[in-house]
Amino acid sequence: MATVLVPLAKGFEEVEAVSLIDVMRRGGIEVISAYLDGEFETDLVLGANGITIKADVPIKTVIADDFDMIVLPGGWDGTYALAENEKVQSLLREFKEKDKVVGAICAAPYALKTAGVLGDEYTCYPSVENEIKQDGYRDDKKVVVDGNIITSRGPGTALCFGLEIVKRLVGVESYQAVKDGMLLDFCN
Amino acid sequence: MATVLVPLAKGFEEVEAVSLIDVMRRGGIEVISAYLDGEFETDLVLGANGITIKADVPIKTVIADDFDMIVLPGGWDGTYALAENEKVQSLLREFKEKDKVVGAICAAPYALKTAGVLGDEYTCYPSVENEIKQDGYRDDKKVVVDGNIITSRGPGTALCFGLEIVKRLVGVESYQAVKDGMLLDFCN
Repeated sequence: MATVLVPLAKGFEEVEAVSLIDVMRRGGIEVISAYLDGEFETDLVLGANGITIKADVPIKTVIADDFDMIVLPGGWDGTYALAENEKVQSLLREFKEKDKVVGAICAAPYALKTAGVLGDEYTCYPSVENEIKQDGYRDDKKVVVDGNIITSRGPGTALCFGLEIVKRLVGVESYQAVKDGMLLDFCN
Repeated sequence: MATVLVPLAKGFEEVEAVSLIDVMRRGGIEVISAYLDGEFETDLVLGANGITIKADVPIKTVIADDFDMIVLPGGWDGTYALAENEKVQSLLREFKEKDKVVGAICAAPYALKTAGVLGDEYTCYPSVENEIKQDGYRDDKKVVVDGNIITSRGPGTALCFGLEIVKRLVGVESYQAVKDGMLLDFCN
């Protein structure tokens, strides 16, 4: 069974995190969410729009070899926290080095850039490319796949991003079943 | 400021609940989520896909006059709980009698039916109309507005449903701003 890690930092975008987790679990992926275990962090993580979600494990206990992919939800406060967290940044580099899959959506491709793992082609929330300051930004696709690095644009593309991950890690049959079951006809 | 109540029962569909809450808050609506305060209920409510969300208040403290609308997320287990909960059912009837807005998505229009508040025209998750057993089911729109009763179809229509609520309770300018900001070009 494919296993995916979703770090949740205070200020994460709730639709993005929940869409990714929900779609991936429906698609047959084991998803583990992890909270950043700093001095003021608990497993109850407050999102950008006031929704608190309970994370599964502290990030300090995470071992890269237990996972096939790491994917980061957006939200600026959450993204900055992910970009500044040494454990998250070192996990991103380790996943890339070990040819695992690395994903990010909305503002979070910025945290891939700071880790040095962003691909040659990527997408992100419109204008975030000005913070990322790296060539290769594309605004013509909801999801950009560049080898093992997969990026997406924002809340409105999160369900389709989750579907692409299901296609990649599980297969096209599961992708189609989840797409039909969740009424995601707008994902192509 | 418009105020909306979102009851969260164990087994609620997470994408639907979070999409509605997130979009409405971005649109300038005060959203209060409420947990069902039975013997085994706490403010940490477990969704259908293993995601736990912290609700704001116990439903027993809710007064209809404090709200402009009530909207129910889907998920079958959550829907049955909402259909069997006396407080939720009486709130639905009180909202309808007082010409407040009543909404439901996916399986949850079933809980409107049990309360006797479903409109003449409605939508729901495909096949749920067979449980609802009431004429007026439509499958040609993401969101069906029948006076003060608004219904929608499933996870893939939840963001668009939230947008329609913003248009109704706040206005078209806020609707357009949230639509653009969340990249919801597939909502029409």
